[in-house]
Amino acid sequence: MALNGDAGRFMTPAFILVRPQLAENVGTAARAMMNCALDDMRLVDPDEDHLCSRAVAASSGAEEILYHAKVFKTVADAVADLQKVYATTGRSRDMIKPVFTGQGMAKDILEHEQKGIKCGVLFGPERTGLENDDLAYADVIVNIPLNPRHSSLNLAQAVLLTGYELFHLSDTTQDKFLSMPKTEPANKQETEHLFAHLEQELEKAGYFKSPEKKPRMMLNLRNIFMRAELTSQDVRTLHGVITDLSRG
Amino acid sequence: MALNGDAGRFMTPAFILVRPQLAENVGTAARAMMNCALDDMRLVDPDEDHLCSRAVAASSGAEEILYHAKVFKTVADAVADLQKVYATTGRSRDMIKPVFTGQGMAKDILEHEQKGIKCGVLFGPERTGLENDDLAYADVIVNIPLNPRHSSLNLAQAVLLTGYELFHLSDTTQDKFLSMPKTEPANKQETEHLFAHLEQELEKAGYFKSPEKKPRMMLNLRNIFMRAELTSQDVRTLHGVITDLSRG
Repeated sequence: MALNGDAGRFMTPAFILVRPQLAENVGTAARAMMNCALDDMRLVDPDEDHLCSRAVAASSGAEEILYHAKVFKTVADAVADLQKVYATTGRSRDMIKPVFTGQGMAKDILEHEQKGIKCGVLFGPERTGLENDDLAYADVIVNIPLNPRHSSLNLAQAVLLTGYELFHLSDTTQDKFLSMPKTEPANKQETEHLFAHLEQELEKAGYFKSPEKKPRMMLNLRNIFMRAELTSQDVRTLHGVITDLSRG
Repeated sequence: MALNGDAGRFMTPAFILVRPQLAENVGTAARAMMNCALDDMRLVDPDEDHLCSRAVAASSGAEEILYHAKVFKTVADAVADLQKVYATTGRSRDMIKPVFTGQGMAKDILEHEQKGIKCGVLFGPERTGLENDDLAYADVIVNIPLNPRHSSLNLAQAVLLTGYELFHLSDTTQDKFLSMPKTEPANKQETEHLFAHLEQELEKAGYFKSPEKKPRMMLNLRNIFMRAELTSQDVRTLHGVITDLSRG
């Protein structure tokens, strides 16, 4: 499966749902995996059929993840081909294993995948989470930092945050401080004409009560409109506003 | 409400759900807000009662967020006291506004809140998302980068990822490369005794076929156990293993 147009750009660890109880949750988890361009879903001894109509409906269009999911009897079978296994858990454990944040896990998986090491992430059943016997297969515990007063996540939300950390690390989207799909920024001649028009009408209207304050007042007005980063269309709109206002 | 023991550490922008359709989704969104230590939920013209039993059940223990939620008739009312408004949307819009990633939004909110500027984030109805009329109240569009082939999130998942970016930015949890809740790392005398015990028993068992290779073979074995970062208890366990194996 190629889940994005930029093959190989995103990480593809297996996401292993251990004894999931509800088919709906498996479906919602599939949707969350698809959101994060992950396609290797594995199920260990699920309580319900992951291809039932409730699961497919809950996947909201991500049913290809469900159709490609592999079902195993035991965690040992599900992780057999993996070289590094991470186990998500909200509880602190008396285990002598590294405990990573979501971001730490993502960086570690990226580093390992770049060396060709196949990774996977375990998620526990909805009600109880992973058992200690499941954690025995994990090299690293993953504990996503959240409000200590309320850190429990449902299965799909745990899958989403884990997947998001992975996606996020490979994503290169930048903030766009101003998006101008339709029109170009106005040039200085256009904005100067606008300010001249405004000044002329304000002058006529008696806005500048004292001549010595006029330069400062005009500068303030100019700065307001400069901050707005006007387009040519904005300038035309404002000419219309000034014309119509000054008519009244 | 003080949602965490570290008051003032986390950001507290308002999360404004615009015309949410299902009470369950409002409940799940409340849970996600609580996960991220956010407590200012606002609802604009919700289709269902946000305090109904379905909403409370879906909140999974975060019902205090629902009880404190404020309901408004219009987006204008809901954002009246806010100074900077962000609107989440999965679709690209023909609007001349900055478009930030989730992380860009979180950094921007942090910067503004540190100056005492009150911020809020708009989330649209489940089926349609925010209308252009709603976006008119926003200073910034937020577009969380996800798989372009499948970027649509349900309401609670959008709330969770947005809240997570905010929480994450203030969170200081470090990766723990090894957590040792019960016992201390073994000291060098303990590990040396272990290696001596191992070497002695291997010698007896005829493991070192050629004397000149023995130092290299022992070094390899030492390195394996050094990598395991043994505790005192581990060392005792391994002594038992060596003793019992060498008896056979």
